[in-house]
Amino acid sequence: MSADDATRPPRARTRGPYKRSAETRASILAAATDVFTELGYRAGSMREIARRCGVDQSTVLHHFPDKSALLLELMTDRDRQADAVLAAQHADAPEQIPQAALALARHNAGTPGIIELYTLLAAESVTPDHPLGEFFRARIARVRGAFEDWFARMADAGLLRDGVDPDFAAASFLALWEGAQLHWLIDPDGVDVVALLEDHLRLLLHEDVLPST
Amino acid sequence: MSADDATRPPRARTRGPYKRSAETRASILAAATDVFTELGYRAGSMREIARRCGVDQSTVLHHFPDKSALLLELMTDRDRQADAVLAAQHADAPEQIPQAALALARHNAGTPGIIELYTLLAAESVTPDHPLGEFFRARIARVRGAFEDWFARMADAGLLRDGVDPDFAAASFLALWEGAQLHWLIDPDGVDVVALLEDHLRLLLHEDVLPST
Repeated sequence: MSADDATRPPRARTRGPYKRSAETRASILAAATDVFTELGYRAGSMREIARRCGVDQSTVLHHFPDKSALLLELMTDRDRQADAVLAAQHADAPEQIPQAALALARHNAGTPGIIELYTLLAAESVTPDHPLGEFFRARIARVRGAFEDWFARMADAGLLRDGVDPDFAAASFLALWEGAQLHWLIDPDGVDVVALLEDHLRLLLHEDVLPST
Repeated sequence: MSADDATRPPRARTRGPYKRSAETRASILAAATDVFTELGYRAGSMREIARRCGVDQSTVLHHFPDKSALLLELMTDRDRQADAVLAAQHADAPEQIPQAALALARHNAGTPGIIELYTLLAAESVTPDHPLGEFFRARIARVRGAFEDWFARMADAGLLRDGVDPDFAAASFLALWEGAQLHWLIDPDGVDVVALLEDHLRLLLHEDVLPST
């Protein structure tokens, strides 16, 4: 598996090698999630990721030149999945935003591994020279901006309770979400992230926007 | 500085060595905060802590037998300081609880180093075999219990808005606090933890409990 795909004979390259390369890439990403979740960015190694995939380290480096490239792919893939969940919930309509957000929280509850990695990397990213420092600064600003847009549109549609500032609602919803996920990772039985977010939305929105379930 | 205090001549031991030992201990704790904040638990080393204090590693080991002992002391010292801030604010009276909590949030804003270390260790503590895994599980449960007691007493005193469940208020206040701190560490200019907590308290409490500032 350590041979570069480009060195294979032409006949085998019509479909098989591409598929195999995609499978190898996927198995590297899965192993990287495990390794970085267990050890964090600094202690996790490309060598250990290769070992768990059963491939040479050169194969890992062929797909991802270094640890930062791997981590960045894992984090952007997580965001792509989140966008897909929101799109499927038609989060562009103000009335659908609360349920779309809760659907994403439910999706996260089903993927604890990547949430654990995200939470660890976010905390690590504050440390000096962390390769994802700039990524997380930009990401937090971007997500807060998206949430501000959400709550501004819900305000325009008359869904927010009187006196609730849309920007406060956005920042508090985001902070509550990620704090609750941290506490859920630490104490899975003690924290229900979806229920906390739902109750928080009930405080922010008019009573009839989010019917009791 | 590497000589054990017990080997010093008796005359110098009446007060000097004890004081010097306490100073060494304090400088070890300060260096440990820096090292673990920069590198995390796994990559931070006792050797590096000793180097920054300008003492032998044996001196560090004399005060703290291993990294977990050091981390545990840093975290329990943080909790002792928090308890002192709350006690000074008379947080035992229900009416004083909101201002006491905000005073603690302001105190935290003035100690970003230890908040960064706390946040990193909390996220790391979820990883396998982390020495503070049990500490953080117990701590989250304990703090949530203390917050539940706070909000239950405020509910008894008639301070909570109608329909606000004290246990939800406690869990959401704690999650919002720690999530906001994470976002503040990532983007110090973009997040005001104290303002977020204050606005959240305004949602949870009757209007006249927390006057506008």
